[in-house]
Amino acid sequence: PAAAQEAQNREAFRQAVVNTLERRLFYIPSFKIYRGVAGLFDYGPPGCAVKANVLAFWRQHFVLEENMLEVDCPSVTPEIVLKASGHVDKFTDLMVKDEKTGTCYRADHLLKDFCKEKLEKDATLTAEKGAEYKHILAVLDDLSPEELGAKIKEYGITAPDTKNPLSAPYPFNLMFQTSIGPSGLSPGYMRPETAQGIFVNFKDLYYYNGSKLPFAAAQIGQAFRNEISPRQGLLRVREFTLAEIEHFVDPEDKSHPKFAEVASLEFLMFPREDQVSGRSERKLVIGEAVAQGIVNNETLGYFIGRVYLFLTHLGIDKERLRFRQHLANEMAHYAADCWDAEIESSYGWIECVGIADRSAYDLRAHMDKSGVALVAHEKFAEPKEVEKLVITPIKKELGLAFKGKQKMVVEALEAMGEKEAMEMKAALESKGEVDFRVCTLEKDVTIKMNMLTISKEKKKEHQRVFIPSVIEPSFGIGRIIYCLYEHSFYTRPSRDGDEQLNVFRFPPLVAPIKCTVFPLVQNQEYEEIAKRIAKSLIAAGISYKIDITGTSIGKRYARTDELGVPLAITVDSTTSVTIRERDSKKQIRVSIEEVSSVVKEVTEGLSTWNDVLWKYPTHSS
Amino acid sequence: PAAAQEAQNREAFRQAVVNTLERRLFYIPSFKIYRGVAGLFDYGPPGCAVKANVLAFWRQHFVLEENMLEVDCPSVTPEIVLKASGHVDKFTDLMVKDEKTGTCYRADHLLKDFCKEKLEKDATLTAEKGAEYKHILAVLDDLSPEELGAKIKEYGITAPDTKNPLSAPYPFNLMFQTSIGPSGLSPGYMRPETAQGIFVNFKDLYYYNGSKLPFAAAQIGQAFRNEISPRQGLLRVREFTLAEIEHFVDPEDKSHPKFAEVASLEFLMFPREDQVSGRSERKLVIGEAVAQGIVNNETLGYFIGRVYLFLTHLGIDKERLRFRQHLANEMAHYAADCWDAEIESSYGWIECVGIADRSAYDLRAHMDKSGVALVAHEKFAEPKEVEKLVITPIKKELGLAFKGKQKMVVEALEAMGEKEAMEMKAALESKGEVDFRVCTLEKDVTIKMNMLTISKEKKKEHQRVFIPSVIEPSFGIGRIIYCLYEHSFYTRPSRDGDEQLNVFRFPPLVAPIKCTVFPLVQNQEYEEIAKRIAKSLIAAGISYKIDITGTSIGKRYARTDELGVPLAITVDSTTSVTIRERDSKKQIRVSIEEVSSVVKEVTEGLSTWNDVLWKYPTHSS
Repeated sequence: PAAAQEAQNREAFRQAVVNTLERRLFYIPSFKIYRGVAGLFDYGPPGCAVKANVLAFWRQHFVLEENMLEVDCPSVTPEIVLKASGHVDKFTDLMVKDEKTGTCYRADHLLKDFCKEKLEKDATLTAEKGAEYKHILAVLDDLSPEELGAKIKEYGITAPDTKNPLSAPYPFNLMFQTSIGPSGLSPGYMRPETAQGIFVNFKDLYYYNGSKLPFAAAQIGQAFRNEISPRQGLLRVREFTLAEIEHFVDPEDKSHPKFAEVASLEFLMFPREDQVSGRSERKLVIGEAVAQGIVNNETLGYFIGRVYLFLTHLGIDKERLRFRQHLANEMAHYAADCWDAEIESSYGWIECVGIADRSAYDLRAHMDKSGVALVAHEKFAEPKEVEKLVITPIKKELGLAFKGKQKMVVEALEAMGEKEAMEMKAALESKGEVDFRVCTLEKDVTIKMNMLTISKEKKKEHQRVFIPSVIEPSFGIGRIIYCLYEHSFYTRPSRDGDEQLNVFRFPPLVAPIKCTVFPLVQNQEYEEIAKRIAKSLIAAGISYKIDITGTSIGKRYARTDELGVPLAITVDSTTSVTIRERDSKKQIRVSIEEVSSVVKEVTEGLSTWNDVLWKYPTHSS
Repeated sequence: PAAAQEAQNREAFRQAVVNTLERRLFYIPSFKIYRGVAGLFDYGPPGCAVKANVLAFWRQHFVLEENMLEVDCPSVTPEIVLKASGHVDKFTDLMVKDEKTGTCYRADHLLKDFCKEKLEKDATLTAEKGAEYKHILAVLDDLSPEELGAKIKEYGITAPDTKNPLSAPYPFNLMFQTSIGPSGLSPGYMRPETAQGIFVNFKDLYYYNGSKLPFAAAQIGQAFRNEISPRQGLLRVREFTLAEIEHFVDPEDKSHPKFAEVASLEFLMFPREDQVSGRSERKLVIGEAVAQGIVNNETLGYFIGRVYLFLTHLGIDKERLRFRQHLANEMAHYAADCWDAEIESSYGWIECVGIADRSAYDLRAHMDKSGVALVAHEKFAEPKEVEKLVITPIKKELGLAFKGKQKMVVEALEAMGEKEAMEMKAALESKGEVDFRVCTLEKDVTIKMNMLTISKEKKKEHQRVFIPSVIEPSFGIGRIIYCLYEHSFYTRPSRDGDEQLNVFRFPPLVAPIKCTVFPLVQNQEYEEIAKRIAKSLIAAGISYKIDITGTSIGKRYARTDELGVPLAITVDSTTSVTIRERDSKKQIRVSIEEVSSVVKEVTEGLSTWNDVLWKYPTHSS
């Protein structure tokens, strides 16, 4: 009941936020006059301004600060690129169909809903059954289509809308498909992420950077995901803006020259071990987390710190922001380490930024598919004698033993690292054969002495050629903005106490409009002054809203508090005006000549409101 | 031969520009390692920065200056929206197919190429034939599929690549088609323009604006056009960024309060009459063009003036920019007037901005399709007695006369304006019948006395309800940027005269990087100072590039001139540095403490280079 009450409070809070957001056009359901499309939303005027502010700050905080190479690639992407990246084969969700109406559902959602409902509402539930449902919720993401289908059958789950039987689950590719050109012979997709555009340009970007590592490339742009049945309103959408960074680094040196600048930051982290052992997130100093090996390397740690600074500057509450490490089963097999910046909202903890060390996976995939070398070079000052591992598969023996699967076995053998190979060599020499995991076959095979040779050879080399590792911070801009709305929203009673008023406490950096201009009463003199002030605001590049209606000043304040406007200028004389701050409601008196420079100072962060509060006479209305 | 020489020069100039652009990664053919896709280009780092600068200035110049309501809508659009807008039925090009290989071509391109080649290279051409080919080139856009097909047959035009016969021309829809959701039952398209997202939101935006006209909404975003066979390199692409404004206005009052601010601007215009009578573009004062009725109304004129200011501020040469009025056959039947900002490039005059008075067409189309009223209200201070035109079709008689076509005739009759209706009434009363054009039938019909009544009735009305007119400036951002590159490019000899060096003379506003930092020689002291300066530039929000290689300073200047970097800081002492301006190559000496503020002043346009040249000691190297 406490949990139920809390859920109800969260729901009510969310409704209050979302109602305000839609009423004030932060969002508009897209194509609303045609009854809309699930999972598509417009940013209306204030939402669009907030988004532009967030993106401008992202550019300043990441691209400019680190001298990143920003690129801008098309959304339309030919199939071969997404074949190489794995999206054509693996970017799927499991779907079931209502066998009579054909309506589609996400299979995991139906199973999840069933288990949750049982756990929450079934009073007759045995301890054993309860444990079973809880277990399913925990492993839901790992279930195969067959396992999912078996559970749906076992529990007698039917189509929620009609109670009709459901088809077996099958994978549905989540990319929007299209055709490039008129022939119908060139399939294409709307990109599911912006990262691939950067990877395919690695060679040119590396050259542009003077053939030096490390460097980072960045891209802001639309991405698409043709959800089966979008839920969670503004968080789960079919088209969204991503801002992605691909930081290319020598896999043998993942230190970061600026790590010291973030090393002492302390914030909530949730390492893998703590999750597995049932503990909660805890405050950690990022420098120590890297030193202790909790975070894999300095560069990853540096970006975690920078993301923390980015989000909290925007106004995300640091007590409701945590960095959660991926569990082993969440992480791709090639990833070295992966952390999500999760923000707590009324929907629970929401992944808003992923920060992953993807090793050389993406570059290698495109190198294999395109045949173009996507590598970096380290030139030696003088030639170096190096010991190189040489693995030579004896194809004849392997062919006899593995037939059609020979290719996968050979690839897996050749991909062994030095340590693994030398261990195999020792094992083969002592035991004659050894079990060997072939990931692409999803099983162990037996390797015998006569199937390969492993040796170390000395060679003179002039340079080291290698595929860089990539560390990828990837930002879901829409999700960050939505969480920011929840963290910024509060209500307070109106002056006469008979109404609750909504306020967004956006920092000036984020606020859609920086200030308003109100003539206190309707007269021509004040209106002229208001227009003069508006002109000086335009010249200073400050967005403003002028309201010359005769509405009471209190109502006009309330209206713009609801848009999160930080400062309101009221024209109440012909020589000076008042400036009122949104959250404290305190006012200062400033001359007409100075007003735009004071607003600029505060909204551009050169001074705080408290600074100017000391400098100018206060005003009480 | 003079014309041929000029064409050759243009081609050589274009090659020089494009080579520089691609070598310095302003552009990268998208998915280059997979051999690219025709009509898709990436913006590499400097190109991406130029684009961001152009868009930021667009926001400042239009959105902020006019307090426009900016929105951000998805690219994925359901079919019904584009059915209403006419794109599903009419956004097509005529295509022919190679009958053996299936390769597709644009029918008009083949005919155009044939006629041009004949005119340029066929020495045996008779005067008569020459005139025929010229005529075809002039009316090319107006030819029906049948006429195009007949000409292709008559001239024996075959597939350019194989000489195989061609199919008859048929329309190919240029939208990228996709499917929304998993059912396959919801067709969707990638939007061909951003404007529709604004029109469908008119009702909410009008309310947001306090239910007042005029107001403008704006949107920046991607648009898509699945070209049959893209040519013209960077100008004709399949995905591009549009920036569109929809200015909603009372059709009975198209004056603009700020028109006086642009009225005295003088620039090249090319009115319809001058084109028809074979004259050239000429300088006109926009205020006079509106006063003389050459431009339909003040609001249209205001935007033409604002577009002129926008483009020339970016660095477009005002002598190679003209505003060309659409000919009658180019303009949609509903448009009141339409002007294109055309920029002269090596491809000829290129349409970069369209500025159209589209009347109430778009809002009416969506109102009809959705059933939602997209109207504005003018409340009268007190009820007004108005004389209203009442047209009452007698459906029985019309049905007898026109059968299945009755609906089109009725709609056309009801759509008559007051003047037209009263003329018809007079004609019917004198002659008993009258010819009447029905556009949707594409023919005249005969209307008789007994088919309708036309009268004027007096009514008391409390408000006027009307569909606003929309004036739409629509900017092809990629085209503007490409033309800007051509207008900014020049070459000059290197110091020793043995090489031609490339320079882009971008204004600081546009320049991808605002300044460079070069230690004159490689030593630690200078590098430390360079890094200190870099830090102060970051803090000031100025993009920079640091180059600490030992390359000669002349080469480092040349490298960044080619990127259009306006200012170069050279560290040649531990107390002061030099700043060199790109085009004049003049240098001043500034203390290390002041350098970032001087760069900021010049690059943000607060001072010109000439201002600071007076203030600081000059330096000669």
